[in-house]
Formats: sequence, C-alpha cells, structure tokens
Amino acid sequence: MATIQSECIQKLIAELKRLPGIGAKSAERIAFHILDVPGDRANELARAISDVKEKIGSCSVCCNVTETDPCPVCSSEKRDSSIVCVVEKPSSVATIEKGGAYNGLYHVLHGLVSPLSGVRPEDVTIGKLLDRLQGGKVKELVIATNPTVDGDSTALYLAKVARPLGVAVTRIARGVPVGGDIELADEATLVRAIEGRMEL
Amino acid sequence: MATIQSECIQKLIAELKRLPGIGAKSAERIAFHILDVPGDRANELARAISDVKEKIGSCSVCCNVTETDPCPVCSSEKRDSSIVCVVEKPSSVATIEKGGAYNGLYHVLHGLVSPLSGVRPEDVTIGKLLDRLQGGKVKELVIATNPTVDGDSTALYLAKVARPLGVAVTRIARGVPVGGDIELADEATLVRAIEGRMEL
Repeated sequence: MATIQSECIQKLIAELKRLPGIGAKSAERIAFHILDVPGDRANELARAISDVKEKIGSCSVCCNVTETDPCPVCSSEKRDSSIVCVVEKPSSVATIEKGGAYNGLYHVLHGLVSPLSGVRPEDVTIGKLLDRLQGGKVKELVIATNPTVDGDSTALYLAKVARPLGVAVTRIARGVPVGGDIELADEATLVRAIEGRMEL
Repeated sequence: MATIQSECIQKLIAELKRLPGIGAKSAERIAFHILDVPGDRANELARAISDVKEKIGSCSVCCNVTETDPCPVCSSEKRDSSIVCVVEKPSSVATIEKGGAYNGLYHVLHGLVSPLSGVRPEDVTIGKLLDRLQGGKVKELVIATNPTVDGDSTALYLAKVARPLGVAVTRIARGVPVGGDIELADEATLVRAIEGRMEL
C-alpha cells in the first residue's frame, strides 16, 4: 500500500492532518482536491500560508496579530481608549469584532493563567497589560476569557492586580445562549443566568 | 470590521474556504492555528502543497497521479496484469489499495461519461483504456465507478466497447455496507443486495 502512494502525497496528507478539525479522511480528500485543481490555485494557497507567517507580527500595544504596528484598532481614533477587553487569543478579537457592538480596545493574553498546567502570569502578556494600565487612561477592563476553570481563574487574577490601580474590572455575562433552549442548558449555566438576570 | 483583520489573514481564510469540507468557521480556525504555529511548521505545509503540484504527473499507462512514469503499480511485476480496475478518480485507487484485496492494475478515467452534463467518452481517458485492451493481455475489466446514474452509464458504455475486444467486463457488487443496518438501507440498495445474493 505504502508503495503505491507517492511520498509527496503522503507528506501533504500528513501535514493537512495536523490542522485543527482535519481528520485522516478529510486530509486525504483535500490532498486529492489540491492534486486536481490547476497549479495556480494550489500555489495561491501555498503563498497565502507563507505570506501570513511573513507579514504578520505582534502589536506592541495590545499583543494582537497585525500587519502594522500598532495595529489598526490601537491606532484608531474612533475607538474608546478608556475600556480594554481582555481575551485569550487573536481569534477572540475577530469574533467580538464580528458582533460589532464593542468599540473599545483589546488586549490579547496569548494564553490563560493556569496553576494546574503550570502557566504563570509571567507566561502570558499580563505584564504588558499592567504597563498599559499605569498611564491612568484605562478606566475599565472587560474580561472576555472563556467561562472555563482557567478562564475564570485568569479573570480573578486580573481583578486582583488591576483593581488597586483604580481600574474597574468586569466579566462578560454568562447565561443561556441567544436562540438556545433552556431545557438543554447545563445547571451551572442556568445558575449564572438567574444570578445575572436583568430588569426588562 | 474589515479594517481590523489584516488583508493577508483574510486572503488565507478565503483560500482555505475553497477546500472541500472547509466552511467559514473551520477556515478561520485553521488560519488562526497557522498564525499560531512556528514559521517552520507553516512553511512545511506550504512546501508540501507546492511540491505535490510540481512533482506529481500522470502515468502514461493508467492515467493515475504518480511521481514516476509508469507508476509503481503499472511497473510492478507482482501485480496481475490480466485484470484492470476502472475508477473515476485517483482517490478511488488509494481507497481500493487500502482494502488490500485487489492485486490487478488500474485505469483512472478522470471523470464519468455523462450525457446529461455533456461529458462524452472522448472527454475522459476511455480512448487510452481501449488502447491498453488492444494488446490482448487484459482479460477482465472491473468497473468500480460509483453506483450513481453517471457511474452506471459509464459502466454500460465500457461494457459495450470492451466486450467486442474479447474482454470480460464486471461491476463491483452493490449491497448493504459491511457493519451497516438493513433498516437504514434505501430500497434500491436492498433490491441490489437481494439480486446479488451469494451462497454461503
């Protein structure tokens, strides 16, 4: 079997399998698709991959991925610089921006503080965040880490270090997802949803 | 929103979305994963994609994708050259080889004859297959096209042109999948399964 499939097809399938959400079957399907499309199209994809690694760096202010430094959000005059939303990773910024409801700045931690996995506050960009808070311009931190154990402990740690600097620290609401079904919500979510109830 | 995401990330997401089975969410997830991994890893993937297009050509005998010409199957002395399995595309060869039960040669049509979509026999590699049959060495064609309208009409066409050359033409069995549930099989499959019943 190994003899019939050429080495470079096998190599491509192996590389594709490393991508998140791509199993053995999908990797094979994509590899044969790439074999099938014109060379130009395949090279476009290859170039897009190398380009992204070449051109994208880190914003020196918010640590988000960016082509320019500071990034378009940090350098925009239209954004409210008194509020900073703290997220775990760059994709969270993209997700929140899609919502279109938030007009403040961001700070990307590139990880979560996790005593259990041995990730300390120094291992993420919390030091840089505290530097940003020294200026006194930031009035509120909105912690938008995931509602998981590590996301919650990171939020608590940030509250502990940021409050003494006179910065309000808030956490995004946890509750029943919009369009979701109460019957399907787990107990912890329902408890949070009731605790966080708001007047109509 | 468009302003915050850099152009080359958007370009990568757009390229990934063109791949089969990759939707908008998966494309974004994979793009941010590529941003996150070390540059070497990403370049490995980019190189694997360009390599496959550069090194892989078509076998002059069976029309399968291959790095060498003729391909390893066509040039192997261990394979039974009196039997040729006809498939629609290169990935079918990979699938059948994985089964490990077949020891003959292959012929890749690179498409199916489809009067409805205007694909004529000249548009696939049937001409080349008929050339192979002229030598008289091939005794049987096993048609392993998908059990669809186009797969079946291609099989019928091949039977019509190959039988006069003294070649036996067979079709892979259709029936209930191994490990499948009869309750879930459609009627057409069940009819085929009963028609194709075999003595135990």
